[in-house]
Amino acid sequence: MQYKIRQQRLRDALDQSGLDALLLTHLPNVRYLCGFTGSAAALLITADKAFFFTDGRYTTQAKDEVEGSRLVTGRKGPLALLVDWMKANLRSRKPMRLGIEAGHVTVAEHRQLTATLPKSVRLRPSPPLVEQMRMVKDAEEISQIRRAALLGCRLFDGALKTIRPGVKETEVAAAMGYAATQAGAEGMSFDTIIAAGPRSALPHGRASSQPIPPDGFVVCDFGVILAGYCSDMTRTLYVGSPGAEARSIYGAVLEAQQAAVEAIKPGRSVGDVDYAARKVLQKNTLARYFTHSTGHGVGLEIHEAPRLAAGQREILKPGMVVTVEPGAYIPHKWGVRIEDMVVVTEAGCEVLTPTGKQLIAV
Amino acid sequence: MQYKIRQQRLRDALDQSGLDALLLTHLPNVRYLCGFTGSAAALLITADKAFFFTDGRYTTQAKDEVEGSRLVTGRKGPLALLVDWMKANLRSRKPMRLGIEAGHVTVAEHRQLTATLPKSVRLRPSPPLVEQMRMVKDAEEISQIRRAALLGCRLFDGALKTIRPGVKETEVAAAMGYAATQAGAEGMSFDTIIAAGPRSALPHGRASSQPIPPDGFVVCDFGVILAGYCSDMTRTLYVGSPGAEARSIYGAVLEAQQAAVEAIKPGRSVGDVDYAARKVLQKNTLARYFTHSTGHGVGLEIHEAPRLAAGQREILKPGMVVTVEPGAYIPHKWGVRIEDMVVVTEAGCEVLTPTGKQLIAV
Repeated sequence: MQYKIRQQRLRDALDQSGLDALLLTHLPNVRYLCGFTGSAAALLITADKAFFFTDGRYTTQAKDEVEGSRLVTGRKGPLALLVDWMKANLRSRKPMRLGIEAGHVTVAEHRQLTATLPKSVRLRPSPPLVEQMRMVKDAEEISQIRRAALLGCRLFDGALKTIRPGVKETEVAAAMGYAATQAGAEGMSFDTIIAAGPRSALPHGRASSQPIPPDGFVVCDFGVILAGYCSDMTRTLYVGSPGAEARSIYGAVLEAQQAAVEAIKPGRSVGDVDYAARKVLQKNTLARYFTHSTGHGVGLEIHEAPRLAAGQREILKPGMVVTVEPGAYIPHKWGVRIEDMVVVTEAGCEVLTPTGKQLIAV
Repeated sequence: MQYKIRQQRLRDALDQSGLDALLLTHLPNVRYLCGFTGSAAALLITADKAFFFTDGRYTTQAKDEVEGSRLVTGRKGPLALLVDWMKANLRSRKPMRLGIEAGHVTVAEHRQLTATLPKSVRLRPSPPLVEQMRMVKDAEEISQIRRAALLGCRLFDGALKTIRPGVKETEVAAAMGYAATQAGAEGMSFDTIIAAGPRSALPHGRASSQPIPPDGFVVCDFGVILAGYCSDMTRTLYVGSPGAEARSIYGAVLEAQQAAVEAIKPGRSVGDVDYAARKVLQKNTLARYFTHSTGHGVGLEIHEAPRLAAGQREILKPGMVVTVEPGAYIPHKWGVRIEDMVVVTEAGCEVLTPTGKQLIAV
């Protein structure tokens, strides 16, 4: 990955934001900028250098992974190391406007920094500069995400063979998790959702110990983490013989999903994509059962910018990778969700999860 | 679980802290107080009531799970719902001192709350009241943790059969994850560490695609989440025939670990336990290779209070559940860590992870 180039692009953005330096503590942002994959780190980007702070557990790993940054390690936590380092190395008394990630620094950390940093350092909430950069993926990232998405599709092919009445939801999820790690994934990108029968009406119905009932929808929503990048997809299948009503709700959600995928083009707003899905469900009097937004960005994090939701104005650009996942949930009865990952192209978008979307009955 | 009793105990603590109400946003604390297991929630504890806020995805789940609290759900996020609710329901203009969890509210959330809450609401950083309560587990919690710890031990018995030269570290980890979910666990409590050969010198050596080399230590550090409660244990085994030097470092770490377990008694400080382990390693001139603290609390979170580290003064009390996990890591050569979970009893402590600790060679 091109860490130094990313750091340089961030410096240009810093300059435009009136900041002298930026303190990164959100781990996916740290990883994006220097390659570190551990769980405790801070990265300081100044006008011409980068400094990386981590505790003693990660000294060796940081030496192996971190690029384009000077390493500072020790017995303390990353922020305490940063404070010590600033005290020892900030010679100038000139005020330094140090940006912090306001969405990822806690009130307690902020108080601690304010109390211990040299007086010349003035903390300023930074705009989400790295999140903005991360929204548009480079070629290497898209290739990683593509691999993660295809692995997700293969897991679903496997799950189709295990989903049967009487099998516990957790057994299906466990088999998928095992297959993912066997295939080289670091793990699943979130707790796998296998929600069968009336549980399919729970949009976040994490697999439970409930056996799959003999008749009804099964929502399968899952993703892997492969070389740091997440995948995310949902298919809903039917156990038993779907009647007219089941076919009708499935058809409406599928139509909504396809309308939203077709709405994805550079220059359009993410709110338009959400509306494209919602309009179809409205026509089918299902809009009030679509209780979440249409999608979200995916990359180093399972949920990242942009949000595809009503009122959101972010403009789609080539290289953005987002999910498209409308659903309809009739409480205590059933639910359907269909989700693809797509990458925005110059002409429109390319679906990264090519698994078929026609209703499968098992 | 006794949610209403916990809420009442929290109210007593609130009163002593000079707060009129407390806003909980740290999900394990929310779960501890009302039972909700989803991923988006806020809980407001007032002098005589509790109000629970979550978004539309979780309406049904919240109705099923949440106890002792009035539910408020809607299309917005939990904090935005809270603000709306406060605007609509706070009749009195009397100032209200509302505690927030300073370690779990971000600077951005704090700014948003300050800008939108009624002017009579004064945000105050709260001491970690719920964390204090959670440190001492009740009988039901200890029984859950005991089950989680024993499942961990069974996973290790299984891993012993798969750890062989040439097998990838990730294959071992994947098999453990699969066995855990098959046994009813929600998942692993952290990314399983299988660190073989020179990688055993990485204290946080998450399983990699590296095949296990024919000769050297393998550090296995792992845990499960069962009914919400985490387990955590480490065993280090040897692939091949350990020589005198390997036996010597292993023996020193084991002696340090046993000394620390023996140091655990009600009334002693956690810093004393850390010192007991460190003293043994010092005697063996290995202290500088013990680069982390001796242990931590475990419960709804894999890392929670207290920290067993140098300089920490928390006093051990019956019902606390902590890990005891000294290690020694010679960079690029090898490492050893041995970890048990123990519960503090009236007389000393009981080890919850009864797997043997003599050096096993496979």
